[in-house]
Amino acid sequence: LTDNGRSRVAVDAMGGDQGPGVIVQGAIEAARRAPGMFTVVLVGDEPEIRRHLPESMGAELGIEVVHTSETISMEESATSVYRRRKDASVVVATRLLAERKVDALVSAGNTGAVVTAALLGLGRLKGVFRPAIATLVPTPARHTVLLDVGANSECKPMHLFQYAVMGRVYAQYVFDVPDPKVGLLNIGEESTKGSEVYQQAFKILEDNRESLGFVGNVEGRDILRGTADVVVCDGFTGNVILKFAESVVWMAVETTRRELAKNLKFKFGALLLRPLLHRLRNKLNYEEYGGAPLLGVNGVVVICHGRSSAKAIMNAIRVAERGARERIDLKIREELAREHRGEEATG
Amino acid sequence: LTDNGRSRVAVDAMGGDQGPGVIVQGAIEAARRAPGMFTVVLVGDEPEIRRHLPESMGAELGIEVVHTSETISMEESATSVYRRRKDASVVVATRLLAERKVDALVSAGNTGAVVTAALLGLGRLKGVFRPAIATLVPTPARHTVLLDVGANSECKPMHLFQYAVMGRVYAQYVFDVPDPKVGLLNIGEESTKGSEVYQQAFKILEDNRESLGFVGNVEGRDILRGTADVVVCDGFTGNVILKFAESVVWMAVETTRRELAKNLKFKFGALLLRPLLHRLRNKLNYEEYGGAPLLGVNGVVVICHGRSSAKAIMNAIRVAERGARERIDLKIREELAREHRGEEATG
Repeated sequence: LTDNGRSRVAVDAMGGDQGPGVIVQGAIEAARRAPGMFTVVLVGDEPEIRRHLPESMGAELGIEVVHTSETISMEESATSVYRRRKDASVVVATRLLAERKVDALVSAGNTGAVVTAALLGLGRLKGVFRPAIATLVPTPARHTVLLDVGANSECKPMHLFQYAVMGRVYAQYVFDVPDPKVGLLNIGEESTKGSEVYQQAFKILEDNRESLGFVGNVEGRDILRGTADVVVCDGFTGNVILKFAESVVWMAVETTRRELAKNLKFKFGALLLRPLLHRLRNKLNYEEYGGAPLLGVNGVVVICHGRSSAKAIMNAIRVAERGARERIDLKIREELAREHRGEEATG
Repeated sequence: LTDNGRSRVAVDAMGGDQGPGVIVQGAIEAARRAPGMFTVVLVGDEPEIRRHLPESMGAELGIEVVHTSETISMEESATSVYRRRKDASVVVATRLLAERKVDALVSAGNTGAVVTAALLGLGRLKGVFRPAIATLVPTPARHTVLLDVGANSECKPMHLFQYAVMGRVYAQYVFDVPDPKVGLLNIGEESTKGSEVYQQAFKILEDNRESLGFVGNVEGRDILRGTADVVVCDGFTGNVILKFAESVVWMAVETTRRELAKNLKFKFGALLLRPLLHRLRNKLNYEEYGGAPLLGVNGVVVICHGRSSAKAIMNAIRVAERGARERIDLKIREELAREHRGEEATG
């Protein structure tokens, strides 16, 4: 790690839909929860950041600021941002990571821009065909790692195999799941289910059943049931599920609100249940789960939802710090080399 | 309609995981809710059916029974069941529909077996490339029609176009949605999102924006938000979402149960809220929405979940009856012919 065993996490202060205030607040909370354990480096417009983090507080909490001035227009393509906006916060933060001046990067900016910056600025890990975004989905007992949720909308059988290897490393080293079980998302248990890509992926995973803890095909319902610790799928399906899951909370809250308005007894009941409903909402609210790492690039990169709360940013920083400390990027490279599956990857 | 303007709905009494009792009960409830409006024809083992429906009650409610004796082994393939088990309830019920002795068919049997029986026994509608299974997903205000949820795991751009046409007919004639809006499920709004198949489908749908009420790409979160009345996707993605959605209710109930056990105040609050929680659960519980029609075959076929309650069976019968009365199969054929898109379909 860069700083005598303490990791340094760059946070893109300008990413996110709600402006830097929420992100700076998340950084402050992360630093407060683990004082002296790691350093947060806020990257963005310094005067703007200082409005939320006075110099003295930054010094006390060990939060550094790297000033960048350039702003990105919403119309620009992700590639053009990376190539032309050398001083945009996400580009500068990626460069800090590429130069090993920090050990991890957290951004709540546009997902496409973060993925592009990571691919161009850091590159893929040796042996990795396609990086994947992994997210946590809550289960009653714990949670399931689901990937890919949107780095690539199409994939080949070998990509799904690599997602399994990468997801396992994430579950094992960041969430302490011993020997994680892997499931292939499909529309039925039988090996003949799904497209040709899924059928071939099943064969490859089955050939590595032991080393991957492969439990076979799992269905949509198994994600929440925790049948597997890691569920792999193409980025199209994963992204659709993730966004659907997001809206389930909204749907439940909206429906409850409509009903409550009608009935005084309901209102009193809801008052008594408020802490429970709040807990339930948090349980289902993926924003509480600390962002989604982009696995398979040279470095630890955690992507947050644009609407992330300070708490979500805090959790993402903690995940990034843990990922950096465990060097999950190197572990992924090692695991892929060990599986003799990564060698065919080409530039 | 077969019976002087009253439709006749065949119900596969032997399909379903819980035995004929629940299905017969659903038929009784459907007949009671609309006395004299239509005839239910229960197809299955008569002695078994009569245990739940005495002769006199059947006569009074206008429920007929067609006896079939053959049982299906779980190991048999769907095609083999259809070809070899001529007296299996789903095969007999399909034959009744093919011979126009009934106007619609409801089955809670194995989905693959029902789809195969319908394809082999009824055939595709002229002009239809691929039939699709449509399901209802609740929204706070109403519901969204989602298709395909599993008839075909892969699809071509033109299939997605036809799903749009078929889903519109279903929304318009069975649920009285005037000029339904259609969305293409994708991972972003831009026309360049998703695989080649989705990009091409976007173009075809866009070319027919007016006649289809096409509102563009919609994301996972838009399904519950009701952004479109009809959302089309490939059967792999649709099936995964459907099964994921199913388990959301289980997850919420399970988490609530765990929390309630811990706290007396919560228990009292839950007691007051019980009717609301029940309503919320029903709202999210797709089983309450009357089964999923297989659109695009010659005849009205409604598939129910194997674990359907009597209420779900009742709702499915009502949907089947309405679909038969509106002749949605003919309307689909007409709409496809009108769109000049169905003519390329081959056997």
